[in-house]
Amino acid sequence: MAAAYKERINRARKLARDEGFEALWVNDAPNVRYLSGFTGSSGYILLGPGKGYFITDSRYELQAAQEVRDLEIAILRGRLPALLKQLLSGMNVSRLAFSGALLSFDEVQSIRRALRGTAAFQPLQGSLSGLRAVKDAEEVTALRRAVSNAERAMRAVAGLVRPGVTEMRVAEALACELIRGACDDAAFNIIVACGPRSALPHATPSGRRLGRRDLMLLDWGARCGGYHSDMTRVFFEGEPAAELRKIHGVVLEAREAALQAIRPGAAAADVDAAARRVIEDAGYGEHFGHALGHGVGLEVHEAPVLGGASRDILKPGMVFTVEPGIYLPGKGGVRIEDVIHLEGDGPRVLGRLPRSGVLPSGAGRGSEVMVE
Amino acid sequence: MAAAYKERINRARKLARDEGFEALWVNDAPNVRYLSGFTGSSGYILLGPGKGYFITDSRYELQAAQEVRDLEIAILRGRLPALLKQLLSGMNVSRLAFSGALLSFDEVQSIRRALRGTAAFQPLQGSLSGLRAVKDAEEVTALRRAVSNAERAMRAVAGLVRPGVTEMRVAEALACELIRGACDDAAFNIIVACGPRSALPHATPSGRRLGRRDLMLLDWGARCGGYHSDMTRVFFEGEPAAELRKIHGVVLEAREAALQAIRPGAAAADVDAAARRVIEDAGYGEHFGHALGHGVGLEVHEAPVLGGASRDILKPGMVFTVEPGIYLPGKGGVRIEDVIHLEGDGPRVLGRLPRSGVLPSGAGRGSEVMVE
Repeated sequence: MAAAYKERINRARKLARDEGFEALWVNDAPNVRYLSGFTGSSGYILLGPGKGYFITDSRYELQAAQEVRDLEIAILRGRLPALLKQLLSGMNVSRLAFSGALLSFDEVQSIRRALRGTAAFQPLQGSLSGLRAVKDAEEVTALRRAVSNAERAMRAVAGLVRPGVTEMRVAEALACELIRGACDDAAFNIIVACGPRSALPHATPSGRRLGRRDLMLLDWGARCGGYHSDMTRVFFEGEPAAELRKIHGVVLEAREAALQAIRPGAAAADVDAAARRVIEDAGYGEHFGHALGHGVGLEVHEAPVLGGASRDILKPGMVFTVEPGIYLPGKGGVRIEDVIHLEGDGPRVLGRLPRSGVLPSGAGRGSEVMVE
Repeated sequence: MAAAYKERINRARKLARDEGFEALWVNDAPNVRYLSGFTGSSGYILLGPGKGYFITDSRYELQAAQEVRDLEIAILRGRLPALLKQLLSGMNVSRLAFSGALLSFDEVQSIRRALRGTAAFQPLQGSLSGLRAVKDAEEVTALRRAVSNAERAMRAVAGLVRPGVTEMRVAEALACELIRGACDDAAFNIIVACGPRSALPHATPSGRRLGRRDLMLLDWGARCGGYHSDMTRVFFEGEPAAELRKIHGVVLEAREAALQAIRPGAAAADVDAAARRVIEDAGYGEHFGHALGHGVGLEVHEAPVLGGASRDILKPGMVFTVEPGIYLPGKGGVRIEDVIHLEGDGPRVLGRLPRSGVLPSGAGRGSEVMVE
């Protein structure tokens, strides 16, 4: 375990050094956790030449002592920029890097003021969070757990998905299952949407009830040891309206096209395009308004981005979602989302849940409803 | 309801205008929700002279149409800086303000590049989030609901707090109660800590079991209609160690001193000092390492700050926590936290939970354990 942090710290140092920086400032919780193992919400890392500090305040002093092994711990008693200046004074640093995507404008200004005459504080061109895109074996294990826990929770509540149940009831039951499971929590606010509300890709669960010949879309995930899963399934109650069945078929085809296109070395934008072409050819291009997928890990959304404007290249070890969707305002929407682990020889879908949860008419037979 | 948003928008416009800006850019979810009513996670607001836009992407198009009344809706199809430039082109704006605390360094750079030659993009000196510090009646109602729901959940699980129960079991039960209640969710990751772990002010629940003559600290809250509560209580199982009983008494005295000092016009730093003096006089000053309290509302931590370095002045309508604590490494910690509503004639504690949950020896008698 400690070895993993050392290796990650070395990669972070190299990222900065390759751009001519002697030191790197890390201020966001996911990257701090990745590089140090610290699971609290308030920590910073300063990686200097040959020396690395983990900084937190007194609330986390004991926790840091337990969790952080490979960095010297400094406790913040006053203002952060002043402590940073003090720690740098013991190092030979003329240029300190930060991540411009992760630090606020004000924080940059106040650190620059404190370091005036000491060191230049400048943004990295490379992506610090991008270091996390390729997962190591331990991370893949955590992601597999996050997927299997999400699936276990879904199997436990699938029997609730029957005519008359409210979106909120299903969402609450699912959230409790996720909390009671082997994992930390739900990965994000669960989406449950029936009927036309399923055309809202990010609907908040409401009191709306599942009707007959209706559909229910669920987007949920688990967080395990800090790692997130993110999945979406659609349940049909009885025979759905013809156009909903049609878009369901198109979405499954788009998913298949994406899986065919995913391989080490592929451009993420090309994978998005492969899925999008299927949806466009079916005449629904304008109703697929989001990217095909996104990396998952210590954040629900992280590198790589599988979207039209992405410059990411897929590499073995990346873990990301594939989630084509078609949303017809006033009618309903279908999205199927899985977590994919790209191995050396191609994509593996993490998880075993059938791709759609077609309910037999007059349903409610527990886990049977998950049979494809 | 609509009137509240118009009034809030007017205050935001005035904040920018008072600093010589013709327009204001709002990019963070809590302020966007406050000014527009939009409950999704991806929205922006541009307030120009006589014209205001709400910007989101296609995922939230229908939701925005349902929730946002007082702003024109613009759907983002390409890059955000380009859309911002386009919307500004129809207005007479030479200086556009943003919140430097809320916008990342990179976002500022990319918007500045897009607006070069069009408008200056500069940080506000005043605090945009600070507009939310004084709550209106509707917000106080939501906060009261968030407190009462947190209390209801605690009463429902208090019977679990008996020797042998794990921190995790209590945290899971509490989280499920919060989800199943009338509210949205838990306000944050619940803290449950027994014995020496209670000296970690932000402990993650573990498998540790509550022992005899042990204490259990719980820090939890509910989120209702977007508004958060945040409370902390300590349960004693049987007669606690003498020093723990002593610090419990000191914390209650510090709380009392804070409540005495809270009044309209008081400096928040003075209220912190009043409570801190009690703890220092008892010889525990170095073991109270955090601020006395913080505003609560659409965020768990917002203005005002009740801390030594704060320049905030307390005003009627503010809602904030008071949470003195003493943490003795290796021995245990005590914190008592309540949500306070400052009315014109003084502070009101929202909620009715006894300040400590002293368990009778051989406990587990359900809600009785909450009797002071």
